[in-house]
Amino acid sequence: MTIVAAGITTSLDGYVAGPNDGPGCGLGERGERLHYWVFGGPWTYDADPSGEATGADKQFLDEGIARCGAIIGGRGTYEAAGAWGGTNPFGVPFFILTHRPEDEPEGAGFTFVSDLDEGMARAKEAAGDKTAMVMGGADVIRQALKAGYVDELSISIAPVVLGGGKRLFDGFEEDVTLENVSVLQSPFATHMTFRVVK
Amino acid sequence: MTIVAAGITTSLDGYVAGPNDGPGCGLGERGERLHYWVFGGPWTYDADPSGEATGADKQFLDEGIARCGAIIGGRGTYEAAGAWGGTNPFGVPFFILTHRPEDEPEGAGFTFVSDLDEGMARAKEAAGDKTAMVMGGADVIRQALKAGYVDELSISIAPVVLGGGKRLFDGFEEDVTLENVSVLQSPFATHMTFRVVK
Repeated sequence: MTIVAAGITTSLDGYVAGPNDGPGCGLGERGERLHYWVFGGPWTYDADPSGEATGADKQFLDEGIARCGAIIGGRGTYEAAGAWGGTNPFGVPFFILTHRPEDEPEGAGFTFVSDLDEGMARAKEAAGDKTAMVMGGADVIRQALKAGYVDELSISIAPVVLGGGKRLFDGFEEDVTLENVSVLQSPFATHMTFRVVK
Repeated sequence: MTIVAAGITTSLDGYVAGPNDGPGCGLGERGERLHYWVFGGPWTYDADPSGEATGADKQFLDEGIARCGAIIGGRGTYEAAGAWGGTNPFGVPFFILTHRPEDEPEGAGFTFVSDLDEGMARAKEAAGDKTAMVMGGADVIRQALKAGYVDELSISIAPVVLGGGKRLFDGFEEDVTLENVSVLQSPFATHMTFRVVK
C-alpha cells in the first residue's frame, strides 16, 4: 500500500510564499527565509544558494528522500523552480500537474499530467512500496487533501511572520482531523508531521 | 526588565476559533479540539471539562504559570470564558482590554483598561521581574505584536484543520522575524515558542 505524503514550508502566519512570487522569486518577496532550512542558513535570490541542510533539517530531508518513490507537483512550482535547471533532479518519477500537458519537455524526466486523479494514480503506482510525495504548490496540496489522497502531512514552519503572500490554506473549507506523528526543530524551521485521520 | 510573552492556541490552518464563537461556545463550532491539550483529552461544550493537562502539555502550562507575574487579555476572551466564573482564577493581576472600562466588576480581581499602551504599562509594572502574559484574543495579540510589545510568542498548534473561523493573523500585514526558542509536543498540541527579533 503506497503512502501519500504532502509536505511544504510555511511562515508562522501560514504563507507558502511572500508577495509577488514567480520565476526568479520562487518564494516571493522576503520569502527566502522560508527556505533557510533547506540551504543551511541565509541566502538571497541574487545568487544561487550553495549551502546544504544540516542537523535536524538534514535529518528531516534525508528521511523524506529515503522513503520517496515518486513525486507529484504543480506546474507553478515547476516554473518557479526554473524546472530545476531543465532536468528532474530527484532520481524518482516526477509528475507535474498542468493544464498544458503538451508542454512536457522531452527526455527531461518530467511527466506532465492534466488531472489530479490521473497524477495521483500514476505517482502511487510508480512509488510502489515507497511514498508518493506531494510537493506543492499550495493548490495541489489543497486539492489532494480535499480529495482524500493525503495520508501524511508535513508542515515546516519557518520562524517568520510574512504578513502577506500566498496562504497554504486559502479557500480551504474542509474540516480535517490530524494526529501528531513527530516534530523536529532546527534554528531555521520546525518540521511537524501529521497523520491524516480518515 | 519585564518580558512580555504572548501565547495562544491555533489550528494548523491558523484559526484561534472555529465559526460562530461566543459565550458557551468559546472556541467556536468544532473548536473544542483546539483545547484538548488544556484538559488532557477530548471534551465538549455540553459539560464543563474536568480533566487536566498531562505530559508535555502540563510542562508547557506549568512553565508558563511559574514565570507569569501579570496577564493582559481582551474583553472578548473574558466574555467567551464566562469571566472565569466571576473571579480572576490566576492569582496574579489580570488586565482586561475593553472599550467599556466602566463595566469592571468590583472585587473580582479584574482590572479593566481602555487602552493597549496603558494596559501593557500596568501589566509590565505589576509583573516586575516576572513575565507579563498576553493571553489573547487574536486581536489583542496582533495589536501587541504590531506595537512592538511582544518579546516572546508561543503558538500551540492543535492537530486539526478547521477550515473556517477566526484566524490569528487575519489582517496582520507586518513582517516579523522570529527565532526558534523551543518546541514541545504531546498527542494534543505542538507548543512552539519564538523570540521576537526587534
